[in-house]
Amino acid sequence: MASHTSTLFSSSSPTFAHSSSHRLHHSPSLSTLSFSRPIKTKPNNLSLRCSVSIEKEVPETERPFTFLRDSDEPSHSSVRSRFETMIRSVQDSVCEAIESVEKGPKFKEDVWSRPGGGGGISRVLQDGNVFEKAGVNVSVVYGVMPPEAYRAAKGGSASDQKPGPVPFFAAGVSSVLHPKNPFAPTLHFNYRYFETDAPKDVPGAPRQWWFGGGTDFTPAYIFEEDVKHFHSIQKQACDKFDPSFYPRFKKWCDDYFYIKHRDERRGLGGIFFDDLNDYDQEMLLSFATECANSVVPAYIPIVEKRKDTEFTEQHKAWQQLRRGRYVEFNLVYDRGTTFGLKTGGRIESILVSLPLSARWEYDHKPEEGTEEWKLLDACINPKEWI
Amino acid sequence: MASHTSTLFSSSSPTFAHSSSHRLHHSPSLSTLSFSRPIKTKPNNLSLRCSVSIEKEVPETERPFTFLRDSDEPSHSSVRSRFETMIRSVQDSVCEAIESVEKGPKFKEDVWSRPGGGGGISRVLQDGNVFEKAGVNVSVVYGVMPPEAYRAAKGGSASDQKPGPVPFFAAGVSSVLHPKNPFAPTLHFNYRYFETDAPKDVPGAPRQWWFGGGTDFTPAYIFEEDVKHFHSIQKQACDKFDPSFYPRFKKWCDDYFYIKHRDERRGLGGIFFDDLNDYDQEMLLSFATECANSVVPAYIPIVEKRKDTEFTEQHKAWQQLRRGRYVEFNLVYDRGTTFGLKTGGRIESILVSLPLSARWEYDHKPEEGTEEWKLLDACINPKEWI
Repeated sequence: MASHTSTLFSSSSPTFAHSSSHRLHHSPSLSTLSFSRPIKTKPNNLSLRCSVSIEKEVPETERPFTFLRDSDEPSHSSVRSRFETMIRSVQDSVCEAIESVEKGPKFKEDVWSRPGGGGGISRVLQDGNVFEKAGVNVSVVYGVMPPEAYRAAKGGSASDQKPGPVPFFAAGVSSVLHPKNPFAPTLHFNYRYFETDAPKDVPGAPRQWWFGGGTDFTPAYIFEEDVKHFHSIQKQACDKFDPSFYPRFKKWCDDYFYIKHRDERRGLGGIFFDDLNDYDQEMLLSFATECANSVVPAYIPIVEKRKDTEFTEQHKAWQQLRRGRYVEFNLVYDRGTTFGLKTGGRIESILVSLPLSARWEYDHKPEEGTEEWKLLDACINPKEWI
Repeated sequence: MASHTSTLFSSSSPTFAHSSSHRLHHSPSLSTLSFSRPIKTKPNNLSLRCSVSIEKEVPETERPFTFLRDSDEPSHSSVRSRFETMIRSVQDSVCEAIESVEKGPKFKEDVWSRPGGGGGISRVLQDGNVFEKAGVNVSVVYGVMPPEAYRAAKGGSASDQKPGPVPFFAAGVSSVLHPKNPFAPTLHFNYRYFETDAPKDVPGAPRQWWFGGGTDFTPAYIFEEDVKHFHSIQKQACDKFDPSFYPRFKKWCDDYFYIKHRDERRGLGGIFFDDLNDYDQEMLLSFATECANSVVPAYIPIVEKRKDTEFTEQHKAWQQLRRGRYVEFNLVYDRGTTFGLKTGGRIESILVSLPLSARWEYDHKPEEGTEEWKLLDACINPKEWI
């Protein structure tokens, strides 16, 4: 049976990147799972078929120097190659920072590859001293998309020739960090790069590329200085490139992490962007790199400050209720997760985004004016923090 | 803003009944959310529009004698009226049985109605002596479905006349019972009845009706005598009506409660049926009544036997992991829940099906031969228990 990955489309799970499926939303003629036609859901057996053909992953004992195909390797200066170098370096530095906070517990690493090229490194630290669950994943995927998807991506072909299936490349780093202490916030980040080959049988049709990503955080309690610190670092990273980036990507983040059935965001936002290709490619590579490198300074000081704060059972129960909302967002709305689950990706990588534990109480409503109520209010009415 | 309920389509949440949406799956030309066209999901704001128009519910201080519309009331002998009487009596007897096991803690009740007719009674007992969370809900819904849905339901119209929107009626009882002790199983049951009016503007077009429902259970550990007892009572109820019912509905249950991305069922099954209308209507009313009345004898003796069994932290952690699977099934696959969340039903009623707490561990695999492994094996390979 041909297997295919979901990790490609994952945004909230620490694999990555729904950039491609999101991108293709630009065409109203394509379904949510644009890549996945002919997916058919039958009423009773829920069977799925997916035309994104990617081989099944196999475990590796060692990290390879690169997950790029041999044919890509000569061009060390290519964007794909430099993006892979960047995300692997970010994975290393985030894991190092987490381990230095943990003082003892270490990440468990799973390396996997695909016979035709591509692969990934999953790192998970579970039930540590400070973190309930920390996942930091990198993956590199080669696949083939249906020609309709390519045509949609490039906005309609001038040619009458029917192109064949279009090869694509995607790479990303993705992470969810759930601390134990209810006063230390959960963090999620994900940066991804996507390319299609220029179809050989359609003269003049261009190669497509785009960037996506974001960093957002989800506290159970608001410490205004923490929220300001976190958002300031995001803004600093954005402002180095374009003054419009922070306000635009801050709003995009608030819009994306929206739990519609609760009319709440899952947390206090950050930045989120997708389909970015209308700027210089080198500039966007630098921008994604800057954002990814901002994760440690934006987050680690907050965790250091809050990890040992005393708390009660009530504080913990509230954190667990907010974790329940995190689960609801990821399983119900996150495009990457839902697509991944339905199409047979590496389940453990996709669902490592879920917290170690979560809680649901019937009709729980925090009393007005309490700290719990303030958090909920900020999730319902997103604020400008800086 | 017009509001509409999800409870109608809910099967795993203790409201009810996805009978209607499921029914309409018979037509491959209709989407999963057959009733809900023109639902449109936009990439960024996730906005939904739904043409199933049902008014917003309002809280009531007292249980009314009936939730039926005045125009329905004269016919006490109608199937709608007798079905309402049955489900309210089942709600009472299940809640009584749970409270007698609890010895002290009582259900909290929320009664609600809709101005144009219909309403419901939600009962929840949370953090009791024996139950972590027990929800037993009844609801009665009047709504209007698009004519395409009615045409699909009756399998194509011979008439060239375009019918107008078709009024429908749905009523059901639904319940999820999560005990604290990891050796006491979770139980879910749901029985529902659905009717459309005969469209007045299409002469000769008939009224449609069907029944749906099921009872299934989800232990974290297998006690073969419990599983046999549970399935035997289901079989006894079925055998009173048709010898083909138990094998058919047992398989249907195994097929429905399938977590595709795990290749596991959420539990050890029971019975499940839907769209039943190809038997005598009185016979099916009796059958649904028999099944619903079998819940207490099938389940309560098992809870009584297991509620005080000593357990370790490991047993509890495994129960919590299985609760995680329950959450995954309900949020990702259960048609009623997913439809309900997307269309604005009474969220607290829909999500009362979720356990009080749940757990996700990275790459957890029980050791072969252990009790945990045996449960997982039975969820992967459904067995014949009797």
